[in-house]
Formats: sequence, structure tokens, C-alpha cells
Amino acid sequence: MIIAALASAPGKAGISVIRLSGNNTVNIVKEYLSIEEKLQDVEYNKLYLTEFINEGESIDQITVAFFKEGNSYTGEESAEIFCHGSPIIVRKILEAFYLEKGIREAEPGEFTQKRFMNGKMDLVQAEAVIDLINSESDAAFISSREQLEGGLSEELKKINAMLIELMSILELELDFAEEDLDFTPNEEIIRKIDLAVEVINKFVVGYKKGRIYRDGIKVALVGEVNVGKSSLMNAFLKSDRVIVTDIAGTTRDIIEEKIEVNGYLLRIFDTAGIRETQDIIENEGISRSRKLIEEADIILHILDSTNPSEEEFLGNIIKVYNKCDLEDVIIDENSVKISCKTGVGVEELKHQIVKKVIDEKLSYQPYYISNIRHFNILKETVSQLEQAKLSIQEGQNNEVVIVDMRQALDTLGEITGETTSMDIINNIFGNFCIGK
Amino acid sequence: MIIAALASAPGKAGISVIRLSGNNTVNIVKEYLSIEEKLQDVEYNKLYLTEFINEGESIDQITVAFFKEGNSYTGEESAEIFCHGSPIIVRKILEAFYLEKGIREAEPGEFTQKRFMNGKMDLVQAEAVIDLINSESDAAFISSREQLEGGLSEELKKINAMLIELMSILELELDFAEEDLDFTPNEEIIRKIDLAVEVINKFVVGYKKGRIYRDGIKVALVGEVNVGKSSLMNAFLKSDRVIVTDIAGTTRDIIEEKIEVNGYLLRIFDTAGIRETQDIIENEGISRSRKLIEEADIILHILDSTNPSEEEFLGNIIKVYNKCDLEDVIIDENSVKISCKTGVGVEELKHQIVKKVIDEKLSYQPYYISNIRHFNILKETVSQLEQAKLSIQEGQNNEVVIVDMRQALDTLGEITGETTSMDIINNIFGNFCIGK
Repeated sequence: MIIAALASAPGKAGISVIRLSGNNTVNIVKEYLSIEEKLQDVEYNKLYLTEFINEGESIDQITVAFFKEGNSYTGEESAEIFCHGSPIIVRKILEAFYLEKGIREAEPGEFTQKRFMNGKMDLVQAEAVIDLINSESDAAFISSREQLEGGLSEELKKINAMLIELMSILELELDFAEEDLDFTPNEEIIRKIDLAVEVINKFVVGYKKGRIYRDGIKVALVGEVNVGKSSLMNAFLKSDRVIVTDIAGTTRDIIEEKIEVNGYLLRIFDTAGIRETQDIIENEGISRSRKLIEEADIILHILDSTNPSEEEFLGNIIKVYNKCDLEDVIIDENSVKISCKTGVGVEELKHQIVKKVIDEKLSYQPYYISNIRHFNILKETVSQLEQAKLSIQEGQNNEVVIVDMRQALDTLGEITGETTSMDIINNIFGNFCIGK
Repeated sequence: MIIAALASAPGKAGISVIRLSGNNTVNIVKEYLSIEEKLQDVEYNKLYLTEFINEGESIDQITVAFFKEGNSYTGEESAEIFCHGSPIIVRKILEAFYLEKGIREAEPGEFTQKRFMNGKMDLVQAEAVIDLINSESDAAFISSREQLEGGLSEELKKINAMLIELMSILELELDFAEEDLDFTPNEEIIRKIDLAVEVINKFVVGYKKGRIYRDGIKVALVGEVNVGKSSLMNAFLKSDRVIVTDIAGTTRDIIEEKIEVNGYLLRIFDTAGIRETQDIIENEGISRSRKLIEEADIILHILDSTNPSEEEFLGNIIKVYNKCDLEDVIIDENSVKISCKTGVGVEELKHQIVKKVIDEKLSYQPYYISNIRHFNILKETVSQLEQAKLSIQEGQNNEVVIVDMRQALDTLGEITGETTSMDIINNIFGNFCIGK
């Protein structure tokens, strides 16, 4: 079965790209080309300028390239068609293909899924593809790029090798168990398990940073009415490149804006919107507001310098005294003075947010995992290793310990895709866009 | 100067395409590639799988193709880069280029403008490119495709040849004027002018059809409150593929929806919205409503079968008796009975609209010009030819007639770009998207 889909973003443009993959793609695509290209043997990786002709009607002048099995993105025989960026032309070309026997519309992420299935990348790298496409800051770009290049996969292979070494030691012990030979003392095995746990825990701990790299710093603006929350939002946006979110038309109950500071994405949530609707669905509003404050990486508590509220918030807080042009207040190290009106202090505040959350320059480490799936698998692996250690300490025989260890290894294998269930794999690729 | 821009639609996707054109493009792009591609001589029209590296940082794994001067879209040395469809990657690649001396961001339509300037297509064909990208129906697709392929250009060349033949006759007469030789009788020249006018007028008359091919049939829904205008709109949309307009965020005072019927785009305007806001800016609302009705190709006058209004509208009208499930009315040939509730008659009404406006199957003729610029130029050419004819009839000497004829020829040349001013050319390409 050949799959086909638009691979470039939908919409009117200079060029659109249609991608096909599967056995016999070359012959099927050639049938739609001008007589010259139809009759000749194709060279792979070459761009042919030709016509796309369906039932005698020339649809468009296109360029087309063919890729050999084993030497394409998916690993299968493939083709890419570059046509005018006209939605109606894209539709006409795809409709022609979909009416063919043996061609169907690609599922979301199916091209990359094929690449994974054909062993050209592991699951961690495949997940990095979608993160890379979605990245909205230098930090997100760097982490997904590194993951795609195999940085994280390499680290996971090292952990895998540690666990396999442990397994072989335990199995060796088991083979000679009847002869009552003890090659490796239990203390040595426990030391090796502890070492593996220590290495894995570095990744578990790195998750918070990884998440911030990928998803940005969640900043909640809180404070009483009229202290200047919306003004601060505007002041943030004014000086910076605003990241345009492409969820047009979606109702957004919470106002979220994004800016990039020092390479990090700042996702700024204005709780004002929630309060204003409190009279309508009060409980809903309060619980959302609370959730937002809980999930925030940092809270900006905005106060009116001329009349600062006594209210206190818990968490990672910067107190922001606005209207400092009207009244000079004395502040401590966790506070800043700004004026949204004059712009004083706004730029410094942005950098302070990054500093207070990250406390370092943009410098990515491969153990900054960013995916909650990876985080959960690694936590589970640690708990299974701890179980193996407990079994040894309890004096269980090696068969039991080996079962624990095997479980830990299988769990770890779920990250890279070795032992991942098809359900989870399908779910991961289902989050891709069509045509990737 | 090299120009560079994103050529595929902006947004997150599998693939994005970046296009560059200008002298030395190959050498400049090569500097950013992996060492292997950087050092080797490039083959044109071949896809290289490589990395895009900026200041030591690998930005993305890309494929890139180079095109030779004289054998590219623009006619200049060019390159196309296919990267992951990640806006941040696109930004990073373009920013790297824009920081180079001698590369700048392409203006809207500049790639196609270069193609035109380098004589690879005329202005009529260039205008067809933008129409093709914007086409939203089979009819629009067919007409822009035909125009791009040179169908209209061929017809215009024939007219041009007629006028040039006339010119040479007149000039010949002039050369021998002193010898008082008269090769061609005036009647013969007038006959030839009349013939040219007749041919051109076929195009002038064809404009209405061409416009409908390209822009669709404007349908205005009018009628009193609660007769079912919005219900009819919904009934139309329910059964058909709705064309999604991509002018998100634009305030639309008039509700416009688009559907495709028999290959034609129906642009349905509901005047309900205008009436509802009449109390706010009454005059504005009425004048818009009036303008809409005047400009409509057809008016659907919706009436309530149970209580039909006596109001009458002028123009190309279909009277639509809604709620025919409740009351059976007697109708004439310009009326239809429908029920938006049960769906009865809705499908037939759509086809009747097309039939009443077009009165034929989708069958494109090359003299269906669709561009108001072409329309105005051809009308002007006709009036200048009429002036030449008048000069002959008035017994003016050939020099005067030649001036008239020269003017007609120059005017005609404005269509294909031979005599078009740079202001008008820039204005035409300014309506393109960037990257085309």
C-alpha cells in the first residue's frame, strides 16, 4: 500500500509539496507525467520538470523527484512532487492518487512511523521530529535537534548496556548456581544497581529543565484589579517578538502570550480573564486560577506601588511593584520596581524571570529529557531496579532478581521503541501532522 | 543581489521550502552545507541530502537542489532548500542568509517577476500564476491554468499581428504618399480596423464570464426578517464542501460563504447581517446592502410561503418560496419552492443558480478574460482603433492615423507587458505572496 499526503503546510503559497511512499511508487507516479518522463527510466534523487496529467487534463507544471528503497526518508520507494502552492491543485493531484487502487491518504505521522519501523530512527528520535517542528524558541529547537541527532538515544544506550551487563552477571550466576559458585559478590551487584539508578536519576531530575527547554517557562501574572497585569503583558509584548500561536478560533479562557527571552520561551498567563468571569461560573474560574498558579514555574505578583496589597502568594515568586514612576518603594532581593507606563524595569524583569527559573545560560545537556513519557518510564525503571536490589537484600534467589531486572530492561526499552506496545506507538505518531 | 524567501505556506508541517535566486547562489548556499557537499562541484537539478550548518551549529538535516542560470524558474542561478517544516528552522536558515552581504528577503512575487523580466513568461501568464494559486473552484483553476499555459497570450498575439499588419499598410502608404500612390483603398483599411475591433470586442464581452470563472457567482440573499435567509445559507453549506477562506481575523461586515456547484464557485452573501446593524450605522448599512444587490450576479429573493411579502426586487432574480412544507404556493418559471427544514428543493436551487447565470456547462473559452486590467486595456484599445477609423473617415492624412494606430498598439502591449509601466508591473507582483 502506498501512502500519499500534502507534506508542506496547507494554504496558498509559491510551492506545495506532496509526498508518496510505498512499493511501486515510481511506476504509479510516472503514469501521471508527460510522455517523456513517463517512458524513460528514472534516475533517483533527480528533479524532473514535467506536467502532472490526469485523464488527459494537465493539472500543473510540477517538479518531481524519486527516491530508491533504502535511500529515502521512510526507507521505502518514495516520490516528492513540487507543485504550485494552490490548494485546488493539491486537491486535484491527491484525489487522482486516492482514486488509484493501492494508494491511500497517509495517517498523521505515518511517513515518520515508517522511518521508525524500518529502523532508520528510534522512537526517541521520532518524537524529536514532532518537537522540532513545534519548537518555538532556541531552547526548544536545541533540545529537539539534539534528541533528533541521537544525543539522548546514545545516553539511553549506555544505560541499557549497564543493565544488560548486570543481567549477564546474574544469568552467569544462575548457570553455575547448582555448583554453588559465586563469581560476583552481592555487594558488587548492588553497587552496580546503585550506579545505574544514579545515572537514570540524573535524567529524572533533568526533566524539569528539559520541559522548560521544550515547552518554555510558565509565568503566571497575579494581583488585584487595576494593578497593571494587562499593562505588564502589553509591555512585555511591545518590545519582543511575539510568538503567534496558530490555534486561531479556539476559545481561550486563559489569556496566554508568548515571548522569547535569552532563547527561552516565556509563556505568560494573565489570570485577569479568569477573575472577570468569576461571577458567571465562579468555582470553575477559581479552580482554573489555582491550577494555573500551581503549575506555573514562576509567579509575578503585581502590586500597585501607590497602594500595595498585603496579600501573599506561595511558590516561586517575584513581587513586581508597578507604577514606580508615581511612588518609590523600598524593595528586597525578591522584588522589582517597574513602570509599565514608562517602560522602566520591564526589560530587567524579563531577564530576572529567566535567571530565577533557570539560573544558568542556555546550555543544553543530553540528560535534559523533555518528554513526560520518558520521565515516567525512567521513574518506573528506577523503581524496578530498586525492587531488584531489595530482592537481593532479602536473599531471594537469582531467578527472582533476574525477573526484576528483565522488567527494568523491558521498561527502559519502551523509550526507544524496542518494547513499546503498538497502542503507544500509534498514539505517539497520531500527534504528528499529516504528511510528516 | 540574491533574493531568498520561504516559498511554501508558513506554518508547522513536514516540509518547508526555501528558495533563493541570483548570481552566485550556488557558492553562497554551498558554504552552509556539510563538508562533502561544500567541497564538491554541484550537479544541477539533483537533490543532495546534507546538513545546513551556520557558524558551526547544525541547524537541520536538509535536502537542497541547485538550478543553472537559464534553466530555473526565475531564469537566474537558483537553489531550493527543503527543511523540516519548523518555523524556527525556517527563521534560522533565512536569518543566516539575510546576514550575508548580497542576499536580501525577496519582495512579494519577486521570483515570478524575475521570470517575467527574463522573458520566460509574459505579464498575462505571470498574472495567471497568482490566479492559479488563489483559485477556489474548478472554473477558476481551468481559466488560470489556460492563461498560464499561454492560451490568452496566443490570442493576444493574433490581435497584435492584425494591428501590426495595419500599421505596415499605413506606413507603406506614408512612404509613397508624395508619389500620390494609394496601394490600399481606405475602405479596405476601415474593414481591417472593424475586423480587429470585432475580435477584441469578443474579449471585452467575454469578461463577464471570465470574471465568474475566476471569482465565482455572486449570490445575494435578500428578504424580510425570519423568511429563512440564514437557514438557506446553512442548507447550502450542509450538503457541500465549504471553501474555507483564509482571511482569519479580518472583520467581515457582510456574511459571505462559498460553495462549489458544478465546478463554479458560488459566493453567497447574506444581507441579514447588514440589516441587524442598521440601527447603529443605518446609512452605511443600507448603502452596503444596495451595493451588494447591485453587484450580485443573481439575487435570491427569499419569501415565506405561509405569508409571502409583496416587496419586489430588480435584477436577475430567483424568487425562493421557503417553508413549502407548510404551505403549497403556485410558482412561475422564475420561482422555486424549497424547504430549508426538510431540504426539499435546495439542491435543485443551487443548480438553477448556475444555470440562470451561466446557461451552459463548464466549457472554457480562451477569450473569457477574467482580469479587469485586461478588460480596461482592451476597451481602451477599441476606442483608439475607433479613433483611427474616424481619422480616416474625416480624411486626415496618414500621419495622424498612424499616431492613433501606434497608440492602440502600445495600449494593447500593456496587457502582455511589452509597454507596461514599471509602476503597474510592481503593483501586479506586489499582490503575490512572498516566495512566489
